[in-house]
Amino acid sequence: MKLPGQEESDVSSAYENVPTGELDSGPGSRPSPSGSSDTDSRELGVTKDPLLFIQLNELMGWPKALEWRETGRWVLFEEKLEVGAGRWSAPHVPTVALPSLQKLRSLLAEGLVLLDCPARSLLELVEQVTGVESLSPELREHLQSLLLQRPQHLIQGTDTRLCWGSAHPREASHDEEAPLKEQRQNPLRKKLPPGAEVGAVLAGELGFLAQPLGAFVRLRDPVVLGPLTEVSLPSRFFCLLLGPPTLGRSYREMGRAVAILLSDPQFQWSARRASSLHDLLAALDAFLEEVTVLPPGRWDPTARISPPKCLPSQHKRLPLQMQEAKSPSAWRRARFEHRRGHLPHEPSPELQRTGRLFGGLVQDVRRKASWYPSDFLDALHPQCLSAVLYIYLATITNAITFGGLLGEATDGAQGVLESFLGTAVAGAAFCLMAGQPLTILSSTGPVLVFERLLFSFSRDYSLDYLPFRLWVGIWVATFCLVLVATEASVLVRYFTRFTEEGFCALISLIFIYDAVSKMLSLTYAYPIQRPGSPAYGCFCQYPDPGGNESQWTRTKPKDRDDILSMVRKVLSDFSSVLAILLGCGLDAFLGLATPKLMVPKEFKPTLPGRGWLVSPFGANPWWLSVAAALPALLLSILIFMDQQITAVILNRAEYRLQKGAGFHLDLFCVAVLMLLTSALGLPWYVSATVISLAHMDSLRRESRACALGEPPSFLGIREQRLTGLMVFLLTGISVFLAPVLKFIPMPVLYGIFLYMGVAAISSIQFTKRVQLLLMPAKHQPDLLLLRHVPLSRVHLFTAIQLVCLGLLWIVKSTPAAIIFPIMLLGLVGVRKALEWVFSPQELLWLDELMPEKKSIPEKRLAPEYSFSASDSEDSDLMYQPKAPEINISVN
Amino acid sequence: MKLPGQEESDVSSAYENVPTGELDSGPGSRPSPSGSSDTDSRELGVTKDPLLFIQLNELMGWPKALEWRETGRWVLFEEKLEVGAGRWSAPHVPTVALPSLQKLRSLLAEGLVLLDCPARSLLELVEQVTGVESLSPELREHLQSLLLQRPQHLIQGTDTRLCWGSAHPREASHDEEAPLKEQRQNPLRKKLPPGAEVGAVLAGELGFLAQPLGAFVRLRDPVVLGPLTEVSLPSRFFCLLLGPPTLGRSYREMGRAVAILLSDPQFQWSARRASSLHDLLAALDAFLEEVTVLPPGRWDPTARISPPKCLPSQHKRLPLQMQEAKSPSAWRRARFEHRRGHLPHEPSPELQRTGRLFGGLVQDVRRKASWYPSDFLDALHPQCLSAVLYIYLATITNAITFGGLLGEATDGAQGVLESFLGTAVAGAAFCLMAGQPLTILSSTGPVLVFERLLFSFSRDYSLDYLPFRLWVGIWVATFCLVLVATEASVLVRYFTRFTEEGFCALISLIFIYDAVSKMLSLTYAYPIQRPGSPAYGCFCQYPDPGGNESQWTRTKPKDRDDILSMVRKVLSDFSSVLAILLGCGLDAFLGLATPKLMVPKEFKPTLPGRGWLVSPFGANPWWLSVAAALPALLLSILIFMDQQITAVILNRAEYRLQKGAGFHLDLFCVAVLMLLTSALGLPWYVSATVISLAHMDSLRRESRACALGEPPSFLGIREQRLTGLMVFLLTGISVFLAPVLKFIPMPVLYGIFLYMGVAAISSIQFTKRVQLLLMPAKHQPDLLLLRHVPLSRVHLFTAIQLVCLGLLWIVKSTPAAIIFPIMLLGLVGVRKALEWVFSPQELLWLDELMPEKKSIPEKRLAPEYSFSASDSEDSDLMYQPKAPEINISVN
Repeated sequence: MKLPGQEESDVSSAYENVPTGELDSGPGSRPSPSGSSDTDSRELGVTKDPLLFIQLNELMGWPKALEWRETGRWVLFEEKLEVGAGRWSAPHVPTVALPSLQKLRSLLAEGLVLLDCPARSLLELVEQVTGVESLSPELREHLQSLLLQRPQHLIQGTDTRLCWGSAHPREASHDEEAPLKEQRQNPLRKKLPPGAEVGAVLAGELGFLAQPLGAFVRLRDPVVLGPLTEVSLPSRFFCLLLGPPTLGRSYREMGRAVAILLSDPQFQWSARRASSLHDLLAALDAFLEEVTVLPPGRWDPTARISPPKCLPSQHKRLPLQMQEAKSPSAWRRARFEHRRGHLPHEPSPELQRTGRLFGGLVQDVRRKASWYPSDFLDALHPQCLSAVLYIYLATITNAITFGGLLGEATDGAQGVLESFLGTAVAGAAFCLMAGQPLTILSSTGPVLVFERLLFSFSRDYSLDYLPFRLWVGIWVATFCLVLVATEASVLVRYFTRFTEEGFCALISLIFIYDAVSKMLSLTYAYPIQRPGSPAYGCFCQYPDPGGNESQWTRTKPKDRDDILSMVRKVLSDFSSVLAILLGCGLDAFLGLATPKLMVPKEFKPTLPGRGWLVSPFGANPWWLSVAAALPALLLSILIFMDQQITAVILNRAEYRLQKGAGFHLDLFCVAVLMLLTSALGLPWYVSATVISLAHMDSLRRESRACALGEPPSFLGIREQRLTGLMVFLLTGISVFLAPVLKFIPMPVLYGIFLYMGVAAISSIQFTKRVQLLLMPAKHQPDLLLLRHVPLSRVHLFTAIQLVCLGLLWIVKSTPAAIIFPIMLLGLVGVRKALEWVFSPQELLWLDELMPEKKSIPEKRLAPEYSFSASDSEDSDLMYQPKAPEINISVN
Repeated sequence: MKLPGQEESDVSSAYENVPTGELDSGPGSRPSPSGSSDTDSRELGVTKDPLLFIQLNELMGWPKALEWRETGRWVLFEEKLEVGAGRWSAPHVPTVALPSLQKLRSLLAEGLVLLDCPARSLLELVEQVTGVESLSPELREHLQSLLLQRPQHLIQGTDTRLCWGSAHPREASHDEEAPLKEQRQNPLRKKLPPGAEVGAVLAGELGFLAQPLGAFVRLRDPVVLGPLTEVSLPSRFFCLLLGPPTLGRSYREMGRAVAILLSDPQFQWSARRASSLHDLLAALDAFLEEVTVLPPGRWDPTARISPPKCLPSQHKRLPLQMQEAKSPSAWRRARFEHRRGHLPHEPSPELQRTGRLFGGLVQDVRRKASWYPSDFLDALHPQCLSAVLYIYLATITNAITFGGLLGEATDGAQGVLESFLGTAVAGAAFCLMAGQPLTILSSTGPVLVFERLLFSFSRDYSLDYLPFRLWVGIWVATFCLVLVATEASVLVRYFTRFTEEGFCALISLIFIYDAVSKMLSLTYAYPIQRPGSPAYGCFCQYPDPGGNESQWTRTKPKDRDDILSMVRKVLSDFSSVLAILLGCGLDAFLGLATPKLMVPKEFKPTLPGRGWLVSPFGANPWWLSVAAALPALLLSILIFMDQQITAVILNRAEYRLQKGAGFHLDLFCVAVLMLLTSALGLPWYVSATVISLAHMDSLRRESRACALGEPPSFLGIREQRLTGLMVFLLTGISVFLAPVLKFIPMPVLYGIFLYMGVAAISSIQFTKRVQLLLMPAKHQPDLLLLRHVPLSRVHLFTAIQLVCLGLLWIVKSTPAAIIFPIMLLGLVGVRKALEWVFSPQELLWLDELMPEKKSIPEKRLAPEYSFSASDSEDSDLMYQPKAPEINISVN
């Protein structure tokens, strides 16, 4: 979900990588026309050419009233002028007929090519272009005045104001360099980065010419060519294509062809460096070598293709180590791993075992300490403010909901007040100390299940709950410290997608099940009134509008509109809050007697009669403090799994985090906070996957300039500690808002849970594969997975996951729930066992390879490849940035 | 909505038009390589070449274990073998790199081209292909045995059973012509029409060849080449592309290129008729002249493009009169009109005025009489049975709902029983007599509004309602007969989209408003219980699940799956019935005290104490029978508009009706039935747009064979009288089901109304334009309309329509409702006045031209065209068959 101000204000960053990425030197990249492709492209990786804006001015109205009109423009994609409608089309992938390119080639070969032309104004340029041609003086003069004529531009403002640039015939006057009013006011100007250059293409039919006139000019120093172009930027290229009207020789299409060529990064690169006509034609030929051809019988040439989500250039852009890989086999393996995007070939430094006691923790602290000042300075951006607001609302929603559930599960031993207080204290402390401060600490489903079990156990045996819980907490902290000391966190390398998905699916199902069962249980407490039945205490239950509504509004495509974006974005960002308010409002308006959130009126523990500090023994026997080690062991496993799976997901390569992770430090912090919250009788906290991802997503840095159809590019995450800290400080202040919270009906909170569960479960690949089980092959989507793994094997993998999930669910729901954490750990074992069932190739597509298998011999990968003769078959698709596993639009 | 059995069993019909359509002789079609394109292609329009199935066998495993494997296949689109996954990809638009085509060309130019080769078996063919080459005898033998080797095919059954054809090395045995088991069992065989031929392409790298070996063979008589091809169909073309492994020369890609060429209709046509290598290369060059090129920097060549909904061939297919248009200007105007697809340039024969009294009626009867026997014989198809069931359910739903509303509106003067009886009697009579028997007669919204007004008038003045109503009916019948006599129906030419949309939007809004207001009014009769209020008579209202549910299931994409299609289709076809049952079931299960449909237990008029025949005067004064002429005049206008707008929509050109319309005869029938129903005190009936369209849609004849991505093509409608007749006979029988109907809660019926209203209003272009009013330009869809008309003009047109709709609504809702029919007629006048505001071009895109303007001078169309130099800019898109205005998935 985008937040206001999230886009990067420095528009140039959107483009700066384009030339680099276009020219990887790996196999399959086309040779640079100027020879020695390797060194050239390496050097090119450093050189950053300015962005080129290309516009096509077409000569209209022959023979009566000649005028130039801009009918097309290109940066990355093409925009056409819809003449009848008087507007620019949506950006689309440019297509051109092959003959136009071929005719252009012959016209250029015969025509005038001026490279590094020293002209300093339009007048000089026009004189140069018309001067060298074998034109009669009269014709030359005619042509010059035509070329100096001011063209018509359609200036389209963001508010859809239209404005046709004036088209009065104009004499070459002294102020031709001064930008026109409409040029200055053109909103397109703002979308182009500073330093951008223009390529102007002039094309059309001119009856008085006896033969075609083609000229391609590269200016030595780019100059603003007066009113020639829509934006008053200096022009680098100038191309003139005129000729007598001849059947089947459309100069307009040739003009489009040259514009498309110039908008191609590789051709543009060559054109900027060409030293002769020969170089230019070689670049054109290199372009033709790579074009994709659509057959006429199966493709309507007027159909417009929307810009792809990822440019091929971005697909081809490989990390440096791949460009430097020496052997093709190493390069191929590197690509295999890059494709997975999850863990690099070598474990990242955070996950390398030092072999010393607390070695990992020390390293984490050392590494993180150097970033500490920047963790606060990097937060000085307005985007962080809106992120704080968004995550704050998500956090208090979570605190309310979990607090309510916790109060119910523990008969009021804890409640909303504890939930708020604990969230504030633990969260703030974590943000200050943790290795990965982007993590948002929160109560999570499995821990809640465990606490529920613990409470019913202590109730069954008439134990004093909070003191018993304190000892569990102490033991958990101890065990976690042992795990930190022994650097156990390096084992997270074994958490593959299989484990993550199993865990995530389970949490989601718990959410959904809880929400539904709570709602249904209300029908007993507040039964539906049947006609004629005694009507005392009769209440009506509405299906919860909150959850549903937010779900529908969330699934709408993201809106990046400039005009109403403060309105639209705010509405969509706060849709869940709005849904809650709507639900509460409807409840209040209709005066329904729904069960409300139980909130204490005073700031004191929910359980009557206890102080804030839990007494270490209470009414319990002393040996219970030792016996508590057994449940604590299980809880430790749970906490470890819960915390580290979240950390793995958050530290994925595709988020491009610069400051690194801190698995050991994070676990250490969780252990310390465990101690603190147990002593105060507050809920236990670990990192919450869904809300942390939302936090990270709200801190995305993206390029703003999506002019002419470019998808906004991801620049990184604002890694800092301040947003989290602010969120939890605000949460702490909200403790005093508790009296307001009593207007929230419980069904609304159940709806939020339902929504969170459905959103999370529907975003994992596992769910897609479960759908495949029921879907006939014909209707299945074109997943890369399905291109490479037989359907029966995909089904088998899914079925195994389903069985695992079923077992986990059964264990969770029976008295055996206490061994649930061990079962969770068992997922890793099951995944390991799958290596006997599935081949490495299959696991590569279905899951990820486990650490030992990262170095599978080349031969074992070979068979698949030997079948597909063309290695590049779908290599590019593999570079699509992997989407995060969990939908990050969830609060 | 598809019904089981709707697809045409004769698969050949799907393909039979393809070659015709591909080769229109209008401007822009490429010249036929064998010269004299005009006569050739005209002649070609008659010749129907067999369908060509092309398969690519690729040589794998060099140098170790050579084997052939089928890796691609083509009919209209391409399917690739996903080697890893072991399945065929979804069909997609084939793309190929340009160099592959160029290399193929040079290989063919150097290689062996055998046209009309007399080989009669694979062995003979292989000997011919390898014989003439300058190969050493040893190499030739090696090559021959390789070519005779049995290839591997992936046979994919409809139930996703996979089966790899055996790949044992095979000697040339005597039974090589006998089809193999897997060839016979291949389900693909059934999808190809009888007479289909095969083009076999064999390509690959072969190390022991010193130089490339290319051969293109056209067999004189197609023969089954043993196990070479996946299906045991005779092969017409055989292409061999082998060579030593060389960098950058992929024989596989060349093989794909030749397959794509052969799958192109124009190239295939030329290849079938080529008499020399020169012809073949000319055809290839002609193909290259027309290909569309995608630039490498902006398009990922591995991305797959889904088959377009309409093939370009279908776009280009012009009616005969266009091909025969002599002058370019006539041709251009013909295209302009073809584009609108609504009314032909000349009014259709049904709408030509004869000038004689009852001339139109006589002509209608005469024309229809000749079709009468076929109107019953054409119904002998299983599809008609399922259409009957579907429309029957829709009709009784409508009868129940309208009957309920009518009973309410008239205080029980009419009710469900009358509704059933009237629907059965009037509908059946209409189906037997009418000009357009596909029309389903039904009560409609505006007539109901009118009847409600009439009733409240008679109640206010203490009149005897039914006798008064009888006289109104008598007068309406008289007026309608006058309209028939004067051939007034020819005026329907003035009903453009503007009028149709205004009418449709109004009806839809009435549906929606009624449904919502009824639901809200229930909250007074059955209030929501507030806590503490006295609880006697407390009932709970559930939001109606019926309407919503059917809406969601309806909007799912149409399902054409073979396997579960009996299951899926039935579920989706009967989704509204299921929704009703679900609603009723939930109501019964929860025992809710909802208001139920009031149904009489006996077969007698709903109004107590009246006989079936309405007395002509009752308690009314005699002069009321004369005064009734005034409301009757208004009702006549309403009936005329309602009936004829429906008839216009039903008789649209895009439905390709063969038996013609019968506007005069239909109106005559309506008049007669008006008399009958008034005399019996039954509801009044006119043609119902939505249900009639659903009827027509359920009788669509479509080609079943959508092998390899071809969109099923529309072949026509089963025009007959029997389905309608059966529907109404069944409805008549259902009168005795009335006791069962009393379990239906009214809110469920309101839900159906809501659904029908929303579905109808969301399917008209007007709604899309209203959405445009609120949509920023950036997010607007790429509508053809918006490519040609300035946005402000589109908005103005929409605003005028909105104002008209608002006026109609106000009139309908106030005591002035009685003049509502005149206002409706006024829509035509407003549309006429719009010609002063909008240019003909704009109206052409926004609406349609009115009859007089059909012959706008060429000059007035010229300006737009002079701007777009390429006339073909979006000419093809214009030929997309116009979708019916009203969503036909509504019951």
